[in-house]
Amino acid sequence: MLYLYNMSTDEENERTFKALSAATRRSILDVLKDRPQTTGALCAHFPTLDRCTVMQHLKVLEDAELVIVRRKGRERWNYLNPLPIKHIHDRWIGPYAAHAVDILDRLKRDLERSE
Amino acid sequence: MLYLYNMSTDEENERTFKALSAATRRSILDVLKDRPQTTGALCAHFPTLDRCTVMQHLKVLEDAELVIVRRKGRERWNYLNPLPIKHIHDRWIGPYAAHAVDILDRLKRDLERSE
Repeated sequence: MLYLYNMSTDEENERTFKALSAATRRSILDVLKDRPQTTGALCAHFPTLDRCTVMQHLKVLEDAELVIVRRKGRERWNYLNPLPIKHIHDRWIGPYAAHAVDILDRLKRDLERSE
Repeated sequence: MLYLYNMSTDEENERTFKALSAATRRSILDVLKDRPQTTGALCAHFPTLDRCTVMQHLKVLEDAELVIVRRKGRERWNYLNPLPIKHIHDRWIGPYAAHAVDILDRLKRDLERSE
């Protein structure tokens, strides 16, 4: 049996994990999950951070392909790209186990709720 | 709209990312995905690492709840726990978008294959 995981995919996973290792970047993705945002609107969600810091975090997310940028006129729109996150999921769960894991998760939550 | 992600879940995500940040730990999970392994059998998959190093990596994975340990007699069996990985997926993809993302992923791969 071959346990060497496809290397390009492991490199993609590595970039994804590094990008997701900062709480601020995770929060940016939480905001983008609801809808795409211009960089200005995104900065308004993080009043304690200056624009330059938000831009730096966006750059890391863009390099990891977790954020895709589209320019419309003078605006810079940021979109969440869910594919790198899906690839992490598929690596260890995969399509056949997903349903079973979902049932397991619901069962666990129901048990915890009734404790 | 509230963008503060549930804190205990973000802390769980943080532990998960830290544990998954090392390539060796990702490889250990690849091995455990196929079937549970005793610690001895797992060490045999990583001949370049000494037992102590493998045990240390297992400890990090266990603390992050990515590996669950069961003792049977003198043997220590290591199981992959997929729930922390599912929780990362659910945070940014969730049950409603999962199907759409799956179609998107297959479309992208088909396009890349025909290039």
